[in-house]
Amino acid sequence: MRKQRNPIPTIDTIIEKNGKIVLVKRKNKPFEGKLALPGGFVELGETVEHAAVREAFEETGLRVKLKEILGVYSHPKRNPLLHTLTVVFIADPTSGKVRADSDVSEAKWFELKDIDFKNLAFDHAKILKDYMNWKKKKGTYWSGKE
Amino acid sequence: MRKQRNPIPTIDTIIEKNGKIVLVKRKNKPFEGKLALPGGFVELGETVEHAAVREAFEETGLRVKLKEILGVYSHPKRNPLLHTLTVVFIADPTSGKVRADSDVSEAKWFELKDIDFKNLAFDHAKILKDYMNWKKKKGTYWSGKE
Repeated sequence: MRKQRNPIPTIDTIIEKNGKIVLVKRKNKPFEGKLALPGGFVELGETVEHAAVREAFEETGLRVKLKEILGVYSHPKRNPLLHTLTVVFIADPTSGKVRADSDVSEAKWFELKDIDFKNLAFDHAKILKDYMNWKKKKGTYWSGKE
Repeated sequence: MRKQRNPIPTIDTIIEKNGKIVLVKRKNKPFEGKLALPGGFVELGETVEHAAVREAFEETGLRVKLKEILGVYSHPKRNPLLHTLTVVFIADPTSGKVRADSDVSEAKWFELKDIDFKNLAFDHAKILKDYMNWKKKKGTYWSGKE
């Protein structure tokens, strides 16, 4: 296997509408069966904003318009398989209807209050807590922010 | 050489005080002799926030406290040598005095209006234009933001 020398960049997107957000149920390792924000790896030659729009569509069927960056999360243990760094966007859905793709078994709108934070993959519980702060007072966030 | 499969993460930091920011003069490729924000690669096992504080100190002699993320810039051509993705922080200096380290030949405080934008490395001219918008109206930024 190729030796990893730097964290691998990924993106995740909070698609929000009327107080709800979209979560997907993961089919693959790690965190199979857990709920997560739609997201994935940033490919070589691709911008983070392109990756976010691409993965949102692939995993949820929604076309999105990115509004802001919530933060960048890069704790070495956030993914138990390899060190990843994720850029989290906040986006509006612009068209399409929620449907799951082959990488995820479910994609669904959730009221924030109905989300079981103990059932979230990676550090997405921390990310959604920061998102709730962002809704009140904006700002940007990262893994070790005090 | 190892084949690159994803963009390589880096960080850059805008250290601001009384309307001035710190720029360094680069000694190494690419952009030798050009001015740049202090920054560098994120190492495996390190968070972006740790890398930002570490590189700011190494390159400028200043201890900093990170305040916000300005944006994430990942255009594949922003660095002519390899595809990098940079997380740009805004920080306050907390102690230390500006001095250059071995990777840079100069580190200096600049008034924004005195910066020659044509003499900046990478996409740092775009980043500093976004920073001037941020000073007026906050928000977050990326390479392809309209």
